[in-house]
Amino acid sequence: MDYPVVHIIGVAGLPEVHPGDDLASLIVQSAQSQGTPLVNGDIVVVTQKIVSKAEGRLVALSTVEPSPFAREIARQWGKDPRQVEVVLRESRRIVRMDHGVIICETRHGFICANAGVDASNIPGEGIVSLLPEDPDASAQRIRQGIRERAGVTVAVLISDTFGRPWREGTTNVAIGVAGLHPLVDYRGQKDTYGKELRVSIAAVADEIAGAADLVMNKTTRVPVAIVRGYPYEAAPGSYRPLLREPAQDMFR
Amino acid sequence: MDYPVVHIIGVAGLPEVHPGDDLASLIVQSAQSQGTPLVNGDIVVVTQKIVSKAEGRLVALSTVEPSPFAREIARQWGKDPRQVEVVLRESRRIVRMDHGVIICETRHGFICANAGVDASNIPGEGIVSLLPEDPDASAQRIRQGIRERAGVTVAVLISDTFGRPWREGTTNVAIGVAGLHPLVDYRGQKDTYGKELRVSIAAVADEIAGAADLVMNKTTRVPVAIVRGYPYEAAPGSYRPLLREPAQDMFR
Repeated sequence: MDYPVVHIIGVAGLPEVHPGDDLASLIVQSAQSQGTPLVNGDIVVVTQKIVSKAEGRLVALSTVEPSPFAREIARQWGKDPRQVEVVLRESRRIVRMDHGVIICETRHGFICANAGVDASNIPGEGIVSLLPEDPDASAQRIRQGIRERAGVTVAVLISDTFGRPWREGTTNVAIGVAGLHPLVDYRGQKDTYGKELRVSIAAVADEIAGAADLVMNKTTRVPVAIVRGYPYEAAPGSYRPLLREPAQDMFR
Repeated sequence: MDYPVVHIIGVAGLPEVHPGDDLASLIVQSAQSQGTPLVNGDIVVVTQKIVSKAEGRLVALSTVEPSPFAREIARQWGKDPRQVEVVLRESRRIVRMDHGVIICETRHGFICANAGVDASNIPGEGIVSLLPEDPDASAQRIRQGIRERAGVTVAVLISDTFGRPWREGTTNVAIGVAGLHPLVDYRGQKDTYGKELRVSIAAVADEIAGAADLVMNKTTRVPVAIVRGYPYEAAPGSYRPLLREPAQDMFR
């Protein structure tokens, strides 16, 4: 009996990433070194944090002059006003603010806490990372770099950790996509009994990002995972189809 | 170099499920028959649909008298008023209604479209399935049955397909949990540089459910997946920690 299998392989051994580093090379080398070289059809999931580091998306808080609004928010919630200022600057809109949490719409259109600004996993003090400016371009660069260095065609997802309404805890989602379409459209397809399927569009890129998280331990260095065996059609890919049209968004 | 690996194995070959069927037996037998018998530590992800079928959570629409409100909703959006009536009966609260979509809070506390009522993948006409009455109990029964029939200790998740605000497409999440805690709490843990982690609580049960979806093809019969190699501590488990406290929910 035929059965589908997907493997999720954590890539360990990447060194600390610095601005200017060639992520594609580091990924190809580390996968090779641990005995799991990349192959055609792999989906390589890369955490946003190392992409932001490689791209120099870092801000020294000492260079930030907080606005009065940032100071007020920081005062209410015991936060660093310079970090709040950075969050505001990375936002196109505030969706909700309460309980010391700021749910932002980033310039890309992502809805997430604190516009993805984060101080963890960065050496030294007083530095925060920002989301990549163009995560699709980041994914494409890595994908192209892998093709050039390893001669294989893969898909690449940039993943980040987002909270969500109504459900506790965070999950990993795709914020950059290259090489596959992030959604699988079942519309028009029938179930086993010939009826049209209820679930019409599946956000497989988010499920792949979440699956990759199962091998990424946030306290140690596994910032990349290979998802192998999931069949997909090659496509340019982008995170944009994952963003709901404002007119269709009931929770704007 | 040590690296983490997780395997997702689709269990094919289950027969059509009918009310009264012993799911644990079907799962153990099918896993065995395809050469991937269950082993200690596996996480078995079972789609809600076959649990609802086995538990007889089916309603014949011919037996439903729609309320005036159900008729009005159905009229506006071209829906079957009897099916709308069933959705209302399965709901504790309506969170939002627009664009022909009803976002409900189910009696369990899940927030999802149409209270999980669904007509697909059911033989015959005019029958809809409801969510299991107590999905944790459903998961526990399957877990216990697997222990009795195969002599192995596994965790069991009941998964369902939910949409979400702001992002297109659906993902699979855990609606019933037995044998592991659905959240991993990183609070108090430090990153590689000794700083407290930003992501404090990860909804791993939802990521596992999403990972399992990668081998479940909605148009064919793979309603169960084994997630193997993910390390977890045995715990009673429940879906309840996954539900955000109303007082903390900014999107209520």
